[in-house]
Amino acid sequence: MTMLPSPYTTLDLEGVRTFLASLPAIAARLGGTPEAWQVREVSDGNLNMVFLAHGPHGGVCLKQALPHVRVDPSWKMPLDRTFFEAAYLRAIFPHVPDLTTECLHFDPHQFILIVPALSEHTVLRTALMAGTFYPSVAAHVGEFVARSTFATSLLAEPFETVMNRRICFARNQTLTRITVDLVLTDPYHDHPRNHWADPHLTSIVAALRASAAVQARIDSLRLRFLSTPQALLHGDLHTGSVMTTGADTRIIDGEFATFGPIGFDAGLFIGNLILNFFATPDRAAQSVHLDMIQTFWTTFKKQFLSLWQNRETAQDRSELYYATTDKSTQNFEKSLFMNEIFHDMCGFCATEIIRRIIGYAHVADFTILADPSTRMERQKAALLFAKDCLEQKKPLKSLADFLELLQQNMSAR
Amino acid sequence: MTMLPSPYTTLDLEGVRTFLASLPAIAARLGGTPEAWQVREVSDGNLNMVFLAHGPHGGVCLKQALPHVRVDPSWKMPLDRTFFEAAYLRAIFPHVPDLTTECLHFDPHQFILIVPALSEHTVLRTALMAGTFYPSVAAHVGEFVARSTFATSLLAEPFETVMNRRICFARNQTLTRITVDLVLTDPYHDHPRNHWADPHLTSIVAALRASAAVQARIDSLRLRFLSTPQALLHGDLHTGSVMTTGADTRIIDGEFATFGPIGFDAGLFIGNLILNFFATPDRAAQSVHLDMIQTFWTTFKKQFLSLWQNRETAQDRSELYYATTDKSTQNFEKSLFMNEIFHDMCGFCATEIIRRIIGYAHVADFTILADPSTRMERQKAALLFAKDCLEQKKPLKSLADFLELLQQNMSAR
Repeated sequence: MTMLPSPYTTLDLEGVRTFLASLPAIAARLGGTPEAWQVREVSDGNLNMVFLAHGPHGGVCLKQALPHVRVDPSWKMPLDRTFFEAAYLRAIFPHVPDLTTECLHFDPHQFILIVPALSEHTVLRTALMAGTFYPSVAAHVGEFVARSTFATSLLAEPFETVMNRRICFARNQTLTRITVDLVLTDPYHDHPRNHWADPHLTSIVAALRASAAVQARIDSLRLRFLSTPQALLHGDLHTGSVMTTGADTRIIDGEFATFGPIGFDAGLFIGNLILNFFATPDRAAQSVHLDMIQTFWTTFKKQFLSLWQNRETAQDRSELYYATTDKSTQNFEKSLFMNEIFHDMCGFCATEIIRRIIGYAHVADFTILADPSTRMERQKAALLFAKDCLEQKKPLKSLADFLELLQQNMSAR
Repeated sequence: MTMLPSPYTTLDLEGVRTFLASLPAIAARLGGTPEAWQVREVSDGNLNMVFLAHGPHGGVCLKQALPHVRVDPSWKMPLDRTFFEAAYLRAIFPHVPDLTTECLHFDPHQFILIVPALSEHTVLRTALMAGTFYPSVAAHVGEFVARSTFATSLLAEPFETVMNRRICFARNQTLTRITVDLVLTDPYHDHPRNHWADPHLTSIVAALRASAAVQARIDSLRLRFLSTPQALLHGDLHTGSVMTTGADTRIIDGEFATFGPIGFDAGLFIGNLILNFFATPDRAAQSVHLDMIQTFWTTFKKQFLSLWQNRETAQDRSELYYATTDKSTQNFEKSLFMNEIFHDMCGFCATEIIRRIIGYAHVADFTILADPSTRMERQKAALLFAKDCLEQKKPLKSLADFLELLQQNMSAR
């Protein structure tokens, strides 16, 4: 007799326990009897219910999609995003097993994803806000971006494999629409979802919107995000999607996964480092941020180029460099590719900074500045840096130019 | 009682008659009794069976996919390409009803497509080879490329519509693989599918393959073809895919349809004009080709920008130019977009010229040069022009630069 799957229901704590107990492999991983498992809710993001369960042998994290935005039940949301997070993990895990979590189970009816619990890890944003700077985490994220994007690009795979993956992720339209609207459109217009606390920011917002160069660049970034499927992206790589112990770092929450420009993942990550940079009360600590950005970019670039180099000497050559044996031409082509990623990174970094200060979903980082006027001044400086990045009256040709612009904007405050 | 569809069988002349008679709308369009219809086979391309049927009221063209390359039965080929041709026609027909044929019927089991017959029309390549130059055909093709690509781009539609179309055409992998291999890979390597008659061409082929700049550009064009989904392309827009009476022009054979860079369609079309330019015995007639290329590009650009302009003033704004009202910035962004298309057009034009002389599927144009040594000289000149286009030792910044390079390469012979 065929059992019909149960209809979708949002699980509560006891529901989670029962669900986990019904999966032999998960129950074995937790160990002991279900009654003895510790189950708690740790929902934190905007979109999902998240639970941690621990037994005598180990722990798992269970994530279930809600049919609406968690913090705004009137904003309805299809459930299939958990499918894309599971598909993302399955696509990239073989290439970054030490930098993300394995998909242990995905339930397509309950939209539940189960991954190992990261009990020793701290959310990077929380660590940064507490003033804890792990020197190696930027290198880990650089490795992650390089390996996950290279592996899913035409540099590593024949186009048929890439196109079949694109077909899958081109359906992740609800979350892509959120990125297009919240990150790449709303902040540049009057929209009820935008908000900012301090009226002193209003003149900067007006200046952003009045700048034809900013508007043109935003249009071009929006188009580029939607029509440059270089690789499979995480799609939401902020410091809340990074968990670390310092020695071990894991990237989580890949539900925004989409094919796009590699500089989008890179830009979101450094954009969030920069938000923390401007929010850090102790100016002496800020050099750490500059080091982290430098380390992230250097590691990413080195790792990406090394994968490319190894691929060229392999038998199965994907869609690129079938014949060029001239090293200087190869290096020229590679530097063009890297410059493109760098240019995208600067642009998307700026959009992330702006939307996290004046858009719908702000970052917590600035809350550590108790004095409202200091907070406003720092947010203003961050917005002006982002505006400079978008306008590029003086073109940003290298990471050194970028970091110099960043320091100028901080010291102007 | 449900009837199972008949299994696929390749139709012969009588099979075509029976099939058409079974479709009331098609039978009515032909008029009279099926026995009185004139049915003949006109298969000409490499991939399909093509029949024309005429009755007292009108005519239709029936195209059926074969499970192999028509001219090489050992090269097996899936049948679904007819599906993509039908899907392409359905996507673009509303935007170019006067420049292509309507899909009257598609049978997904027999892989049969039926469109109106073009009884008064001549294949453009045939006309050019006969020395018949229709002044308006280049403008018609420019209109076609502008309207079909604009309508299927993010400039005209929200990304959800564009992504759903991309999902459909990303399955057209067999024919995309043919383009990647035959147009963008094989000619630059030793491959049994390559061939050329005159041993004097061998040194030019060797020079092409030895040029690191050519190889790097080819790699970059291959990557760009596969990862720049600007719009839905025809994908095989050579002069054999254009039928014209002079006053009326129709683009046919869209089975290679794929999302890609707009410059690919433009480049294939002018590449084939240029092949005819080099193959034309009468040098006095060659200025017509230069005029045609100029007319094609000017019409395309004017029409594309006019559609863009109209879209900006419409209510539903797609994914671009939500806010920029500054005309000079808009024009700057538009000229960047046009320059990108121009640059792609030059590159893909060169690959088309090369593959049509030394690759698998040559063009007939050069056969009108009876003298083998003249033919070889002209093919050599065409290859050297294409090599210059790819290497761009002097960058091609405008169509004037491009046409000047073309004339230089012709007069050097």
